[in-house]
Amino acid sequence: MTAPRQIRVNAFDMNCPTHLVAGTWRDPESRASEYKDLAYWTDLARTCERGLMDGIFIADVLGVYDVFGGSPDGALRGGAQVPVNDPALVVPAMAAVTEHLGFGITASTSFEHPYTFARRMSTLDHLTKGRVGWNIVTSYLESGARNIGLDAQVRHDNRYDIADEYMEVLYKLWEGSWEDDAVVADPARNLYADPEKVHPIEHDGTYFKVPGIHLSEPSPQRTPLLYQAGQSNRGKRFAAEHAEAVFMGAPRPEILRANVDDLRGRLVDAGRDPHDIRVFSSFSVVVAPSAAEAEEKRERYRALIDPEGTLVLWSGWLGYDLEPYDLDEPLRHVPNEAMQSTNEIFGDGRWTVRDFVEGLGFGADGPSATGDPAAVADQIEDWIDTTGADGINLNHVVTQQSYVDFVDLVVPELQRRGRYRTTYEEGTLRDKFFGRGSRLPDTHRAARHRRHPAGAPA
Amino acid sequence: MTAPRQIRVNAFDMNCPTHLVAGTWRDPESRASEYKDLAYWTDLARTCERGLMDGIFIADVLGVYDVFGGSPDGALRGGAQVPVNDPALVVPAMAAVTEHLGFGITASTSFEHPYTFARRMSTLDHLTKGRVGWNIVTSYLESGARNIGLDAQVRHDNRYDIADEYMEVLYKLWEGSWEDDAVVADPARNLYADPEKVHPIEHDGTYFKVPGIHLSEPSPQRTPLLYQAGQSNRGKRFAAEHAEAVFMGAPRPEILRANVDDLRGRLVDAGRDPHDIRVFSSFSVVVAPSAAEAEEKRERYRALIDPEGTLVLWSGWLGYDLEPYDLDEPLRHVPNEAMQSTNEIFGDGRWTVRDFVEGLGFGADGPSATGDPAAVADQIEDWIDTTGADGINLNHVVTQQSYVDFVDLVVPELQRRGRYRTTYEEGTLRDKFFGRGSRLPDTHRAARHRRHPAGAPA
Repeated sequence: MTAPRQIRVNAFDMNCPTHLVAGTWRDPESRASEYKDLAYWTDLARTCERGLMDGIFIADVLGVYDVFGGSPDGALRGGAQVPVNDPALVVPAMAAVTEHLGFGITASTSFEHPYTFARRMSTLDHLTKGRVGWNIVTSYLESGARNIGLDAQVRHDNRYDIADEYMEVLYKLWEGSWEDDAVVADPARNLYADPEKVHPIEHDGTYFKVPGIHLSEPSPQRTPLLYQAGQSNRGKRFAAEHAEAVFMGAPRPEILRANVDDLRGRLVDAGRDPHDIRVFSSFSVVVAPSAAEAEEKRERYRALIDPEGTLVLWSGWLGYDLEPYDLDEPLRHVPNEAMQSTNEIFGDGRWTVRDFVEGLGFGADGPSATGDPAAVADQIEDWIDTTGADGINLNHVVTQQSYVDFVDLVVPELQRRGRYRTTYEEGTLRDKFFGRGSRLPDTHRAARHRRHPAGAPA
Repeated sequence: MTAPRQIRVNAFDMNCPTHLVAGTWRDPESRASEYKDLAYWTDLARTCERGLMDGIFIADVLGVYDVFGGSPDGALRGGAQVPVNDPALVVPAMAAVTEHLGFGITASTSFEHPYTFARRMSTLDHLTKGRVGWNIVTSYLESGARNIGLDAQVRHDNRYDIADEYMEVLYKLWEGSWEDDAVVADPARNLYADPEKVHPIEHDGTYFKVPGIHLSEPSPQRTPLLYQAGQSNRGKRFAAEHAEAVFMGAPRPEILRANVDDLRGRLVDAGRDPHDIRVFSSFSVVVAPSAAEAEEKRERYRALIDPEGTLVLWSGWLGYDLEPYDLDEPLRHVPNEAMQSTNEIFGDGRWTVRDFVEGLGFGADGPSATGDPAAVADQIEDWIDTTGADGINLNHVVTQQSYVDFVDLVVPELQRRGRYRTTYEEGTLRDKFFGRGSRLPDTHRAARHRRHPAGAPA
């Protein structure tokens, strides 16, 4: 009999007033409108490290949710992912007040050239001493594309072809340009870096031409820990080839189980170990010392859920305007194309607008557990053991109270059950995830771009 | 008789081992190779705030100095502005440990789309509570242009035309998109932002098309404090139209005086007050409690100056390879075009390579003062009073010792003379600079893009 698997927990947040649960920014305990302040982020980081979480992941969009009603008005009224500030810039301050916590940021392969993006991530990996992850996003809101001068989004599959080459450029810069011992920094030899060990990448591809060397010296992890969340077929293939962790959403365990199994199979096809990816499943928690208090808290939160803000978000995710519907009208008129991703996630597609608002208001694309610490821990354990996921991506219902409650109440319960770390492992974020060092394994496609001391790629 | 002008001091650094003085990273006291660590930056910020400096400015290049010898080898050996990490990412950590210090970063109008850059700067202005400045750069190293897929740099003047439109897009986003009272954040009204007061900028220009709203809510300064350093005729015009502070380099006071006077005249032409720009002049200091100790320290530093690294930097600045020259060979073969900017700065152009290495090794493009605190303060006072500059841009000879010495020894001396603040003014960086609030004045061209409560531009 093997020991029960440790459950990983990642805090999921966004640099904006409303991330996934609309309306709860109005709770008296909510700190949502402090998102602009450094103290919001340093406090959150301290809480998550106190709770021995793996990391904080910061979502991002470069654009506004303007599908609902055909305008950004509803999004603005609810602070629904707009206004939204840059996620990378809060990481250095959080790193300064923590020692072990990881930091993930979302960034699209469509908004910044890989040459400059590579340096930005290397800088973060240096400053955090190897605690940075990157959620690779290829898609983005249509409104964002328009604002950088693109008339329409690049077709979905082509976007992934561009992303594949984007990754290749990054791997060459991160893994191939500087040999491990290129930086000498020896005053006696009057040598900071040995030019013989720093190589121009000479990338001349279909979408990018990058002849030169990487601007940053090797950082602890080189390539940041790679996350991905694509749920399309092409997106899953991309994840299987690149990602070390994925975010998955599913309201029912059998759907998640199928997706997890599918992904692990794809990893084998890509020449990797099926457990080379950690799966984080969307989850939200309303917990209190007693079941009655938890129900009371849930009711208080539920009363704050804002229908409009919820539909603004769902209209954006579906790419379909839910504004003309009455609350109890079935969504039978929604074209199949728009509902496809939702059908995949929720099974039968028989939804009313009220289902989105009331049923999904707390969990977005995952389950929501309410109860005392034991009940919540039961549900989390059951979810993890049934689905084969490695951990949960903890959404907040009310920030930062949801995280504080989880750390104070659920973490000790999971620890008592032997399902949660009681101290951090040493090392970088990647080392904490897989326990085999800071670098990507040799089976990862990035490894083929490494240069070895002889000077040529292996 | 008016009170003597207060002298402003800005610390000038870069996220790399060697900024302006090559070879001194080898000094036992140097922390140059710690540039990758957060502690380097938080310590520097604390020192500068202890010394009541205006701010820390972080230079940047996106490319390598590969003119010398036609390769980046010399730059790598000396750590001469390569490796170089992103400057913006060290700001949030420095902001977290300070209250008044300003932070300036260099960023080019050629490497990032204004829509995403606007959000990055707004985020910094929020996180620092209005303490951020931006050094607007239009030029960059040829090697950087190649690595983002450009075959050659855009012609110099055209670059400024693009930059003018880039600024227009930014002003619309920063000043025009959100009215002052657009963010309500009122739970009782269930209203985070009032859509009636958030406006798409509908920019449809020659180089950029940005139809949408700014993604960030109004930050304390809106537009960050604007710096510029261009010394060409077109660059000076750009500065006169946009900048609130400029960096100027000159080895002799009469040259700086002429440039300062010229700039103030150009401001009047642009409809601004001649003192709407603060001029910071490059300066370096080697100071010790006694003159003898200072001379000893200077001699120790001088012995560390690395000829190759110095010539790597100068070859890059001149765009002309100094590698084939003997140390004492006059530079008479340098084409006039390459020497033009240097002739402007240094007067007669009769230089040998040794002049660059020995005469300029400490000061880069400004004077260097050595002595006890009184002697150094004399030289700074004299320099400021003769040239009409507002302050000095303090380069380090050895980091961070040069800053620590300045704060411990020179600041108290200038304070005794009534030439240096003894406490910080309240308010944002712009307010500390001009004492008239956090926003750009109505005479600045950005102001024409503001919307007033009526909803239309004034």
